[in-house]
Amino acid sequence: KSKSKPDFSNRGMSLEEDIAATNEYYRVANIAIIHKKPTPIQIVNVDYPKRSAAVIKEAYFKQASTTDFNGVYRGRYIDFEAKETKNKSSFPLSNIHQHQIDHMKDCHKHEGICFLIIKFSVHDETYLLPAHHFFPYWDDQFNGGRKSIPYNDIKARGVLLPFHYQARVDYAKVLDKLYF
Amino acid sequence: KSKSKPDFSNRGMSLEEDIAATNEYYRVANIAIIHKKPTPIQIVNVDYPKRSAAVIKEAYFKQASTTDFNGVYRGRYIDFEAKETKNKSSFPLSNIHQHQIDHMKDCHKHEGICFLIIKFSVHDETYLLPAHHFFPYWDDQFNGGRKSIPYNDIKARGVLLPFHYQARVDYAKVLDKLYF
Ligand SMILES: [Mg+2]
Ligand SMILES: [Mg+2]
Repeated sequence: KSKSKPDFSNRGMSLEEDIAATNEYYRVANIAIIHKKPTPIQIVNVDYPKRSAAVIKEAYFKQASTTDFNGVYRGRYIDFEAKETKNKSSFPLSNIHQHQIDHMKDCHKHEGICFLIIKFSVHDETYLLPAHHFFPYWDDQFNGGRKSIPYNDIKARGVLLPFHYQARVDYAKVLDKLYF
Repeated sequence: KSKSKPDFSNRGMSLEEDIAATNEYYRVANIAIIHKKPTPIQIVNVDYPKRSAAVIKEAYFKQASTTDFNGVYRGRYIDFEAKETKNKSSFPLSNIHQHQIDHMKDCHKHEGICFLIIKFSVHDETYLLPAHHFFPYWDDQFNGGRKSIPYNDIKARGVLLPFHYQARVDYAKVLDKLYF
């Protein structure tokens, strides 16, 4: 760990937890309303006991048809996916699924603000990568291109997200600069 | 059933199914991207069999902390809840939960487009009621006001949603008039 990093590093917290904390802060501080979507579940069998809550007895995880997070910021539609990688020098595209890209392309077409939040845990750095920078990397992999995005490209095309005590992944500030 | 109604009535389909079909049409026809959020589930016990998919063995339904539908239309954030009632002369407020109102008030504050879609199954009529018309009825019930919205008020303040074969609950057209 570099000595120049501040003491209140977000190490130890998962990216999802940091974003959840940030979203809650944004809600309470009246900055934005962003929620994580529930994991979609295929329910097969439910028990209805007489005097207590229904119990799901058999269910399966389904592929999500969208990204994980969406909501509203300054009237605009916000949509993003968050991914953490232990990889040092690139972000493997296998972390993302085709249906998530399809969804982001759809939203992008309708002028939603779409992006990825990518955390390189080894560097303890988290980047916001606008979807329109990401799409070409995704599409190129099917035309003989590489199966990952170099760390240096993300550094160059993305924006490093500042860590603040309350907004651990302070993406709203970056959206101000990029989209408004 | 009134004789003036067209043959391809949506009777028999649930409001949720009609909205799902509409959303799918909007997506394919490149009109809007709106999805229903998955039902939130509290997972307690999961089995990981050796050669097959993980099976959820015990789980419970959780209260949703948001509304059912959201997405993007013409760059704006869209958020709504859909409710069907068999009541003839009013919409009982007990159909809606406080946390759904809190969420809609939050989104409304951030300039999202928020509304209810209310179907009176007896009349075979479906209305879009903008959230800012709904909020006063909600708040008044705690100050001695009535616990339901009169059908006639919804008729007066809401907009009757047209039924089309592909867009069974064609709310996008109504949003054009109300919000753009
Ligand atoms: Mg995810
Ligand atoms: Mg509902």
